[in-house]
Amino acid sequence: MKTHIVYAHPEPHSLNGSLKDLAVTTLEAAGHEVQVSDLYAMNWKAVVEAADFGEQATSPLQVVRSSGAAYDAGALTPDVMAEQEKLLWADTVIFQFPLWWYTMPAILKGWVDRVFSYHFAYGVGVHDETRYGERFGEGTLQGRRAMLSVTAGGPESHYSDRGINGPIDDLLFPIHHGILYYPGLEVLPPFVLYGTDRMTADEFKDAAKAWTERLLSLETTDPIPFRPQNFGDYEIPSLQLKPNLELPGRGSFDLHVRA
Amino acid sequence: MKTHIVYAHPEPHSLNGSLKDLAVTTLEAAGHEVQVSDLYAMNWKAVVEAADFGEQATSPLQVVRSSGAAYDAGALTPDVMAEQEKLLWADTVIFQFPLWWYTMPAILKGWVDRVFSYHFAYGVGVHDETRYGERFGEGTLQGRRAMLSVTAGGPESHYSDRGINGPIDDLLFPIHHGILYYPGLEVLPPFVLYGTDRMTADEFKDAAKAWTERLLSLETTDPIPFRPQNFGDYEIPSLQLKPNLELPGRGSFDLHVRA
Repeated sequence: MKTHIVYAHPEPHSLNGSLKDLAVTTLEAAGHEVQVSDLYAMNWKAVVEAADFGEQATSPLQVVRSSGAAYDAGALTPDVMAEQEKLLWADTVIFQFPLWWYTMPAILKGWVDRVFSYHFAYGVGVHDETRYGERFGEGTLQGRRAMLSVTAGGPESHYSDRGINGPIDDLLFPIHHGILYYPGLEVLPPFVLYGTDRMTADEFKDAAKAWTERLLSLETTDPIPFRPQNFGDYEIPSLQLKPNLELPGRGSFDLHVRA
Repeated sequence: MKTHIVYAHPEPHSLNGSLKDLAVTTLEAAGHEVQVSDLYAMNWKAVVEAADFGEQATSPLQVVRSSGAAYDAGALTPDVMAEQEKLLWADTVIFQFPLWWYTMPAILKGWVDRVFSYHFAYGVGVHDETRYGERFGEGTLQGRRAMLSVTAGGPESHYSDRGINGPIDDLLFPIHHGILYYPGLEVLPPFVLYGTDRMTADEFKDAAKAWTERLLSLETTDPIPFRPQNFGDYEIPSLQLKPNLELPGRGSFDLHVRA
């Protein structure tokens, strides 16, 4: 197994830093290869701008068109190209980050915004009567798996089905489905630690054990069964789920998960 | 009316730039005061780091504790303090941005991560048997309103109730509820333009008209009726919605909206 860990926390001696370190040592001890992108240590540039596209940047700047032209010309910046190569090298991608305001920190969103360029992560494949490009289950990263490992300050009940924050699976859906499944990654259920603002040493010991078990079962864990786009479940090109496919009484995002 | 516009797009001559400009001219012509935070023009720093908290940064860095200590000591960086002052000055806050990967661009997420400091936007109010701090309808920004104005490249059907991306209201829930309603802002229904990768001049004319109408009715538009946290709808401290309050057959996030 070849694992790429994308890690976003400013403090090496943090819970997130410890979970990242534990992932490296656990996977390497099991004989796997690991690469880590420590976004803070790399001083990762979070902001999309014309300079990302070199001479391929249009003026006025059209982000999508410029991104695709720069990708096609091999003219994206070296930091972005290196991350794309790591994604193509890996069979498994782990994202380790704290939930800040119910989603990823800005530095990691900036990794997505810049690395997931047009013609690499979107704008791939043909559009015709039966296909709407290669995305949602197909695409450049098809055949690889991804998993989020996140920490949340609040208690688990706040993220439960009736919890005030909304269910964790729904909060993560825009990342799982919209960012990871979109370019073809299969998405494993997330590893989530709650109440991390007040974690005791004993609680960390339990968390480390649970995390180790998840890491050692990455290859045998079933992904979330999101519906692929081009295999009959959706009308083309409206991309609305065909009638009567959904299970009754489930949330709106659950429409896009098979039974 | 005093409106603070937070605007995040790298190209002034973009659709987002035009919508921001139209907001400024429309509101000023109607006699309102407007301040704009043009995050790209300001070269806004997107990434939370120890330097944000000056001498109040703990070592190792604990982000929450350092953020609160720096806020209490008036020691946050001038860029962050200026944004907090604009939020306190305004009665209405508009966010203008393109949906990138189904959420805000990194530069805007970095505005949230840095400006919404502990003791300003969270960690406010007491915890006791009837209150779990001041948040979700209460807090520092209570009495103000916010609205998202967003552009989406894809067509509207993809963001409909059965659309493959998920319903737009659910995709925006983590921002509406988790970022804006959390520190007390009332949230107006969003202004969303679809299919913006292929917008014609005629379509822009229609969009500008619709946007103008929304801008001139900001004061009379009803906010999304999210449930306030501390007024009987939730168990304390589990913050789970009490039984039988929800409408049947609605999505998981809709539990947190009153009829």
